Parts: sequence; C-alpha cells; structure tokens
Amino acid sequence: MLKIAALEKLVHELSHLPGIGPKTAQRLAYYILKSPAEYSQHLTEALQRVQSEVHTCPECFNYTDAVICKYCEDPHRQSDVICVVEEPMDISRIEASGAFRGRFHVLHGAISPLEGVGPQQLKIKELLAKVNKGVAGDGPAIREVIMALDADLEGDTTVLYLTKQLQDKSVRISRIAHGIPIGSDIDYVDDRTMGRALENRVEL
Amino acid sequence: MLKIAALEKLVHELSHLPGIGPKTAQRLAYYILKSPAEYSQHLTEALQRVQSEVHTCPECFNYTDAVICKYCEDPHRQSDVICVVEEPMDISRIEASGAFRGRFHVLHGAISPLEGVGPQQLKIKELLAKVNKGVAGDGPAIREVIMALDADLEGDTTVLYLTKQLQDKSVRISRIAHGIPIGSDIDYVDDRTMGRALENRVEL
Repeated sequence: MLKIAALEKLVHELSHLPGIGPKTAQRLAYYILKSPAEYSQHLTEALQRVQSEVHTCPECFNYTDAVICKYCEDPHRQSDVICVVEEPMDISRIEASGAFRGRFHVLHGAISPLEGVGPQQLKIKELLAKVNKGVAGDGPAIREVIMALDADLEGDTTVLYLTKQLQDKSVRISRIAHGIPIGSDIDYVDDRTMGRALENRVEL
Repeated sequence: MLKIAALEKLVHELSHLPGIGPKTAQRLAYYILKSPAEYSQHLTEALQRVQSEVHTCPECFNYTDAVICKYCEDPHRQSDVICVVEEPMDISRIEASGAFRGRFHVLHGAISPLEGVGPQQLKIKELLAKVNKGVAGDGPAIREVIMALDADLEGDTTVLYLTKQLQDKSVRISRIAHGIPIGSDIDYVDDRTMGRALENRVEL
C-alpha cells in the first residue's frame, strides 16, 4: 500500500512486536523516518548491543550481561528457596515487593498443549536437576520451591506437572496466593478470584 | 531497575516511539530478546535500509525511494490540482478513497505556536513557489489547492495562513468537508462536528 519497499519492510518487521498491529507499525515507521537519523542509529545500536551482550544465566535462566546473574551471584540471598517464574520479566515484579530474598528459576514459558509447548521446551529438567543435586549433596540443599506462575490454564497445568515431579524429593512446594488484590473493592472482584479467596482464607 | 545496561538502553530507545510508554517498551525489549536472533537482525536491517533508501520527493516532499515520487511522476494524474496534507502518511488515506487524481504537497507538520512550529519550519514556501511558477508560466498552471489538513487548532491555523498567502494568486482554494462520518449514528456525533455539518450543509 505504501509502495516503498524499504518502508513496507520496516512496517512488516515492527508489526511482529506484541500489541503492535499493522496500523501502529505504520505510525511507528513514519515516526522513525521523521526523526533525526541519530534516533534510528541509537535504536540499531541498542538492538545490536542487546543481541551481543545479553544472554541467559546458566544457573537460573534469567537474562544477564555477566557470567552469572546478580541474583545467583549475591551471597546474601538464601540459596535454599527457589522462586519459579515463567519469564525473566516476572522477576522484577517479585523483587519490587521486597518480600523474597532467595534464588529464582525462569522456565521461559508454561506448558501449553494448544501451542505445542511441552515440559521439554521449558527449563524444567534444569530445575529438577538443581533440586536433585541438593538431595545428593552436590549443591545447596533446596528447602522450598515457590511457584510464582500466571493464574491461567497454562500456569495451573505447569504447577500441577512440577508438583508431581517434585513430590518425592522432600522439598516444600508452595504457590503464591491468589485472592482479592490489595486496595480493590469487593464489588468488582470476579467470581473465580472470589472463589479462590474464600477457599484459601487465612485463619486470624 | 533491570540492572542490565544493554537492555535498559533498548527500553529507553523504544520508549521514544509514539504511544509506547516505559512498560510497553520493556515488554517489547523482552520480546525481542526472547525471539530468535534473526528477528533482531531483520529489524536492524529494515531500520538501516529505510534510513539509506527513503528520502523526500523534491517536488511534493512525500517519502520515496526513487528520484521523484510515483504521484509526481505519473503523467495520468492532473497536474493542475494540488492536495495539501500535513504528513506523508495522510496521502495513503486520500488515495484509498479513490476520489482524488491530482498531485500532492506534504507540509511536514502544521503551524503550532505552542510547539514553536512556524510557517518557516514547514514546506510552505515550496508550495507558494509551485503556485507562483504556474502563474509565471514556468511550470504547470495550478487551478485548485485542496487543503486536507487535520480538523484541529493547528490544522485550522495553517489553513488560515495558507489561504491568506494564496488569496491573490487567482487559484481556487478549498478544504475537505467536515461533517458526520458515513455510517455513523447522529446521536453519537459531538457538538462541534454537528455545528460544522449544519454550517456546511449541501443543497439537494
């Protein structure tokens, strides 16, 4: 429609990004064209730098630009508690709460038969190996595995699978609580959340 | 917050794009990291190609990858009618309607005293030169200038300024009609649009 091959290619590439449709991609491409050439250069450099410098931590599979990530490196963090998350991005949410000072383990997704994602595609065997090493005495003993996975079908399936795999390892397995968000009005809470909140009520 | 310099830089650059806040920029950066390396390469190539191949047409200031743009080159288009638009992107909307077969002229913005954009920053003197050339017989005679500018304060100001400049050139000056959009419900039309629609009513 634009009839300029280079511009159409940029729109095509930008529209692969999540939440960016063809219309928004077109707006972004025109913005980049209208901007001084330095902006495009900065963006290109940033893309190349991320690709060359950032990789996954061999311990927890979080993103890092060092040999191992800062959470795995920090000697002041508890090494006997592992918080399992779906994506590296989830770590910053958990860190922001200030309520967790252990290690992380990033699965890089959740089990989703519909999208063809099975346990083999995720960093599950690495998590099990870490727990096994602790049991065998080859690594730090793991006391607890906290599942901080999404509260959707894929998250639930993954929690179920991991629980089954970890059952006989004599580690405590827990999942972050689902319930009414702090500061929200009970009137506006959906049925399933209310169901969970009642089910998981805490004794006072 | 992410503590990975390369990733923070990419988030920073992405958040300059229109409609992309820091949160969305973070989501996009993580998506790029998660994608195969080819995606990042394709995006980088597309950015570089756009920067090196696309420039503005010396006639109408639309974007093109040729010497002059396809609208200026096409001998089947009327050369005596010029449609003035704010941005190159607006041309595709006008073309899609199929109701215009003349030339274009892109101002690359609109007069906005608040943002420090005066007539000097826009391609206004080039438009006036084109009309003057026609009057002097040095170029194609211009019969009509159609203003297809945004229906906001900046668009209105620019139309007013251009009308004043073109007044004594014996060209017809018109502006695209503002009124009720086709297919829309009169109940939902705002007051100002309704005012314009009544003002500019068409005799049947």
